[in-house]
Amino acid sequence: MAPLLRATSFPRHSRLHHLRFPLLLLLPSRSLRSAAPVAAPGLDLTNPTYVVWGCNTGVGKTLVSAGLAASVLSPCSTDPSAFLYLKPVQTGFPCDSDSRFVCRKVSALFRRYEGGSLSGLLASDHVLNASRAAAGELLGGRLEQPDEAEEGDAASRGLCMYEETRIGMGEAKEGESKLVCKTLFGWKEGISPHLAVKREGMPVEDSSLRELLGRCLGLSLGGGGDDGGKKRIWRVIETAGGVASPGPSGTLQCDLYRIADEIIPKDQGLSNEVSLQSYLRSRLPVLVLPPIPGDPLNNLLDWFYESRQTFSSLQDIMLSAHIKRIQRLHDMPRKAGSLFWWPFTQHKLVPEKMVTVIDSRCGENFAIHKVLNDQEMIIPQFDACASWWTQGPDSTLQIELVKDIGYSVARYGHVMFPENVYEPALQCAELLLDGVGKGWASRTFFSDNGSTAVEIALKMAFRKYTSDHGIHADFHKLGPKGSCTELRVLALSGSYHGDTLGAMEAQAPSSYTSFIQQPWYQLLAMYSGRGLFLDPPECFISNEIWSLSLPDCLWTNHLKPEDTRFSSCAELFCPSRDTSAVAENYANYISKQLSDFAASSCSIQRILVWECQSRKIPVIFDEVFSGFWRLGRESAAELLGCQPDVACFGKLLTGGVVPLAVTLATESVFEAFQGDSKLLALLHGHSYSAHAVGCASAAKAIRWFKDPNTNANFDIERKMLKELWDVKLVHGLSSLPAVQRVVVLGTLLAVELKADGCDTGYASLYTSSLVQQLRADGLYIRPLGNVIYLMCSPCTSPHFCSQQLCKLHQRIYEFSERRGKE
Amino acid sequence: MAPLLRATSFPRHSRLHHLRFPLLLLLPSRSLRSAAPVAAPGLDLTNPTYVVWGCNTGVGKTLVSAGLAASVLSPCSTDPSAFLYLKPVQTGFPCDSDSRFVCRKVSALFRRYEGGSLSGLLASDHVLNASRAAAGELLGGRLEQPDEAEEGDAASRGLCMYEETRIGMGEAKEGESKLVCKTLFGWKEGISPHLAVKREGMPVEDSSLRELLGRCLGLSLGGGGDDGGKKRIWRVIETAGGVASPGPSGTLQCDLYRIADEIIPKDQGLSNEVSLQSYLRSRLPVLVLPPIPGDPLNNLLDWFYESRQTFSSLQDIMLSAHIKRIQRLHDMPRKAGSLFWWPFTQHKLVPEKMVTVIDSRCGENFAIHKVLNDQEMIIPQFDACASWWTQGPDSTLQIELVKDIGYSVARYGHVMFPENVYEPALQCAELLLDGVGKGWASRTFFSDNGSTAVEIALKMAFRKYTSDHGIHADFHKLGPKGSCTELRVLALSGSYHGDTLGAMEAQAPSSYTSFIQQPWYQLLAMYSGRGLFLDPPECFISNEIWSLSLPDCLWTNHLKPEDTRFSSCAELFCPSRDTSAVAENYANYISKQLSDFAASSCSIQRILVWECQSRKIPVIFDEVFSGFWRLGRESAAELLGCQPDVACFGKLLTGGVVPLAVTLATESVFEAFQGDSKLLALLHGHSYSAHAVGCASAAKAIRWFKDPNTNANFDIERKMLKELWDVKLVHGLSSLPAVQRVVVLGTLLAVELKADGCDTGYASLYTSSLVQQLRADGLYIRPLGNVIYLMCSPCTSPHFCSQQLCKLHQRIYEFSERRGKE
Repeated sequence: MAPLLRATSFPRHSRLHHLRFPLLLLLPSRSLRSAAPVAAPGLDLTNPTYVVWGCNTGVGKTLVSAGLAASVLSPCSTDPSAFLYLKPVQTGFPCDSDSRFVCRKVSALFRRYEGGSLSGLLASDHVLNASRAAAGELLGGRLEQPDEAEEGDAASRGLCMYEETRIGMGEAKEGESKLVCKTLFGWKEGISPHLAVKREGMPVEDSSLRELLGRCLGLSLGGGGDDGGKKRIWRVIETAGGVASPGPSGTLQCDLYRIADEIIPKDQGLSNEVSLQSYLRSRLPVLVLPPIPGDPLNNLLDWFYESRQTFSSLQDIMLSAHIKRIQRLHDMPRKAGSLFWWPFTQHKLVPEKMVTVIDSRCGENFAIHKVLNDQEMIIPQFDACASWWTQGPDSTLQIELVKDIGYSVARYGHVMFPENVYEPALQCAELLLDGVGKGWASRTFFSDNGSTAVEIALKMAFRKYTSDHGIHADFHKLGPKGSCTELRVLALSGSYHGDTLGAMEAQAPSSYTSFIQQPWYQLLAMYSGRGLFLDPPECFISNEIWSLSLPDCLWTNHLKPEDTRFSSCAELFCPSRDTSAVAENYANYISKQLSDFAASSCSIQRILVWECQSRKIPVIFDEVFSGFWRLGRESAAELLGCQPDVACFGKLLTGGVVPLAVTLATESVFEAFQGDSKLLALLHGHSYSAHAVGCASAAKAIRWFKDPNTNANFDIERKMLKELWDVKLVHGLSSLPAVQRVVVLGTLLAVELKADGCDTGYASLYTSSLVQQLRADGLYIRPLGNVIYLMCSPCTSPHFCSQQLCKLHQRIYEFSERRGKE
Repeated sequence: MAPLLRATSFPRHSRLHHLRFPLLLLLPSRSLRSAAPVAAPGLDLTNPTYVVWGCNTGVGKTLVSAGLAASVLSPCSTDPSAFLYLKPVQTGFPCDSDSRFVCRKVSALFRRYEGGSLSGLLASDHVLNASRAAAGELLGGRLEQPDEAEEGDAASRGLCMYEETRIGMGEAKEGESKLVCKTLFGWKEGISPHLAVKREGMPVEDSSLRELLGRCLGLSLGGGGDDGGKKRIWRVIETAGGVASPGPSGTLQCDLYRIADEIIPKDQGLSNEVSLQSYLRSRLPVLVLPPIPGDPLNNLLDWFYESRQTFSSLQDIMLSAHIKRIQRLHDMPRKAGSLFWWPFTQHKLVPEKMVTVIDSRCGENFAIHKVLNDQEMIIPQFDACASWWTQGPDSTLQIELVKDIGYSVARYGHVMFPENVYEPALQCAELLLDGVGKGWASRTFFSDNGSTAVEIALKMAFRKYTSDHGIHADFHKLGPKGSCTELRVLALSGSYHGDTLGAMEAQAPSSYTSFIQQPWYQLLAMYSGRGLFLDPPECFISNEIWSLSLPDCLWTNHLKPEDTRFSSCAELFCPSRDTSAVAENYANYISKQLSDFAASSCSIQRILVWECQSRKIPVIFDEVFSGFWRLGRESAAELLGCQPDVACFGKLLTGGVVPLAVTLATESVFEAFQGDSKLLALLHGHSYSAHAVGCASAAKAIRWFKDPNTNANFDIERKMLKELWDVKLVHGLSSLPAVQRVVVLGTLLAVELKADGCDTGYASLYTSSLVQQLRADGLYIRPLGNVIYLMCSPCTSPHFCSQQLCKLHQRIYEFSERRGKE
């Protein structure tokens, strides 16, 4: 629990929800992006880090920092510690300097009250950067040349103003308490930092600020007489102004410091702690300090002395919360292994040490907990599997979604959908029909996940088919033998449409459909499942060349090798290929399959759609994975250049935060359900149909990904994403000896490793050593058998993608070498 | 768009998300609760209502109110209007009186700048209640008797301090501008209202404040020379202090005024509107006012005059947002009818005028938009179907969920679940296994909705059964004929387990499983679907007596009528009945059915469970509907007093905001999936498995419902909900001539109306007139054929339930009368 010290109007700001979860630890994603392709070192949790927030300026943040430091450093403290105080941004400098205040006040307190004790204190204050104006002021006007302030920015940096005080008996010795205070950036005028930057120069990028802060946090506080790190280091960061005050770049502080460990909000005012306590109930301990003397000349030493018990309690509360947190992190893998039943997981193959503890997510990255060299670490990991392909938000969109979702819960919670309308659902439907459904769909049917969206699509297609082909609705009344009209699906082998029993019947036999997994899956002589499954061709890059591999059924002798090789992905998808020799083969194959029974590159899919639609067989596109820019276009339909009758969307639909799925349909499919009786309606629905949170989230995400103002990857002219994976690096990968083939499309990059027999396939553990290495590099990979894939967000910068590709290349290269030696 | 006037640190408070949705309109649920059983009149939208918020006190809220009023009332205003200014809470009164300030300042401005115009202004200021201390001050100390302040509270109310000013040429006439200012409650000391209450007395309940505010908002501003309401009335409510400052009861203002139409946040400070504008981007228009003169003696009239263009723009922006909002509300039913495909809905039977526009939800109530007598109204409706049985939050829990969900999105978004662990998922699993799974379950498998939870449960049970009975996993390898071992489910007829194709196979034939709805549903001679379906007995209240109706198969001649009649629900569920004559019949019936094949009251369910478990048939409890206090106990398992092997939960699991489902299983079921190969694992999963938002929400809700501090209905001794539906009222209902039977259990009350033939059953429209009447009464009912049900939240007050029951009784009584006459 982060304690709260005297507050009048404790702001119930969404960011302040951290309060009830004092153990916030989010790593800055942007500093990650600018990091070298070695995993950023992350934050060491062994020593606790706290951020001091205030509701406003002048509420006594610095008094709390100083009181806490004095308490921690006191020889009476139960926990021998060193104290690092960081003030990242100081305005009004050097007149105001919170780090100097803390340094001097703690020294004075130590001198007055602990002077006689045997232990000593070494206290220092260090100013790292000051604007020219601030530095001039500090150096007695010698640098004061306002007119040159702007050009002179560089010169004003690296000020290295330093003062140090030792208090104690005799020489410095081991075990001496140590207080290190640092101001990172100082501006002269006592105004909001972003304004000070405007007036005095010395702009600071958020990433630079975070990086410098990170480096300072990493200080060991060691020295000549160091005790070898046995002491706990308390690290306190004090913010400037209020929670929502802007930093130097204009970014609000609550967004800027996503590196917090614990947060202390505090305020002072009328003695309303009773009301506060009752309001906060058991959320937070509320500590009350004695009234602060009003006299500006008062040196506050007595006040601090009177407050020592309160600060000591504060110290205890903060430390015990920290220790509890570490303990919980340690317990989590064991508890997870014994309480969870993970999907698609053979628990026997996941020992406790393999369990990943995810402490937070920020944009495309996780922060995970790990003990490395006896240090409690929080380490960044790129979520390379996009958490089962759901993830889209960069760190900015994630914050935007916090707001929209929070608003939606406050305004709607969830409300009933059928026969009703409310703004988020309507907005979401409008955006869907104007986006992925544009030009063909006119109806939106909401559900919760891809599987259910597919089952709904099947029900739609069944009805449309029976209605178009005059199959009577009451056919089943013919009796037990009447059900000989079996409706079957035509699908591609190797495809996957979800795990519900019905959706599985639309898949070709595989590990997933075995008797042990799905005892109701049909296995008959002529066909398996409830479908006819066609073998599609596959496209990939091998040795730098885009190629097409045709299954035997599609191969004929008059095809030439050059018919299956392409200079680029674009050529492969070009509609002009519809008249190629390969395409002719497709048409013959499909036509033959369709007529035999009563029927995939992309050209084959286009031809398949045409052949089906000409026979009034409704076409369903399962876009649960491919929708919303996964493949570089808003939908696969757009990529293929043809339109379905029904299509299913999920995963990225909400941007990647909450489940929501939708099945879109043409008006003519919808009409097959119209009638005078409710019994003709599509009698299917889920409790949270079109839930407001999901719809609001989707409405934000759909707009975000295709707005060049919010997504720098969006090419508005071509209505597609820019190339995210560097072509040269991809070709390089495709030429590695261990690599069979590479596929790259939109946000996806997949690498199939050469493997034989039991090393291939879904259950293979072939890549596990490689996966462990990549995770150590900061790439959270989840392989599919001998296939390793990286999936980024539609907003991820190509630069970041290249960094990940380099790591991948290096590790697969080493893997090739090892394999070569075996 | 609500405009923003000069701000330094615009707080990104969750409530302030309203900003980007300026059209917030939530009705106070508590005022509803205290309302008579006639629908509360709701808020009239024809005239716009705005709330003026500030980040803090002293930021110029009142200046904006006055400037806006002057602009609206100016003869140059394009929109002839009247202006109602309400200050609900004023401290520092009568020295400070914002309503007096607005009244006098606007009069003075009118006098100086519009004095020569032909139209006049009638301005009044009215103080409705003042504390004794404030009233004393106002009346020149005559009442100043601080010692008696507490007893004297009542006397100090209804102060009726009133001042009125007319400006204009000659007599009052039609079309004269009218400004009405009111202070609702005033305290003397200039401190936070809840502190002022402590010191001066005059406590004000939130509900009383809202009620008085509601009444004042309803003022027509009419008078002798009224123009018949042709003028638009602008209504502005000015808050006290900041958004998160407490009101008189200590409730934060942002929670108190859930009646807002538009919100204007504003602040003043350094000229940082440029940074603000770039921060807010296109969210909000930012208007900049001239600097406010620092001289306290300045009467500000010139400042207001200089600012008139800005206020005029503000007026335009606010009005156009309001008009746009009304337009959107009008368009919504048509758009919904043409873009949505509602679940379980025959669109042909839902004309545009039947579509309900839901503007917001607050706890158990919707606010819906309707045009009544040419007035644009926002009307409260009790969500009597609990939005498909999902709803649990009262208004307090809803706000708590805003915070927890907001935090969860900020901290986790969604992260990958398999092989991972993160706090919300772990907490949720711990709470589930310590709650609904206590004593039997040891594993949690998360999914997204009830249907998928059921499909997962089926897969678990299949495996457990095959493993217990030595059915080989590779049985299907025997070839096409090998699949003769068909796994079937034993279930109760009339039950429903979701709409996915697999879940449907576990249901007995019904409208939902017809060929037209589910062409893959099995219909064979011996059995239908994939199951054996048992006929359960039913229990209900008829003519005030709890009764049991037995299907023919359970009836034998040695049963006496008294065997099926009970004095109370508790007696019906009593385990001692397991040895009754009826129970003996159950056991014989079940045993016979089970042995014939290879195989519901509650006693039958208990016996069924025993019979199955003794034969090693795994038992699944589908608790998607019944879980989490729906039936008065945390689970139906608890109600029945027996334990399953697998159980499914959904709906109320998250408290009622976002979809999440979970399948719990015993360790022995889990072990049937353990092995050395991944292919033995349960290969089932959904993208958003255990998504953090759902888990965080569930963790909050699970605790909330069973904490007597947050749920007054929870009887901690008996671990069940108190009786929510008044027994006498229920018995009264059960004796109405039109009523066949009544069932009441936990949060549920269902009434079956007498009906014959086509009037019964799922597709019946028999009750539609009754439903329309109840909706007009403020009860949002959705019938199931000839069954009408009310479902409240586990936290809904019994008093509120009784109010709803009275409305229902009245309407069914009238319905009986009409039926009698036909």
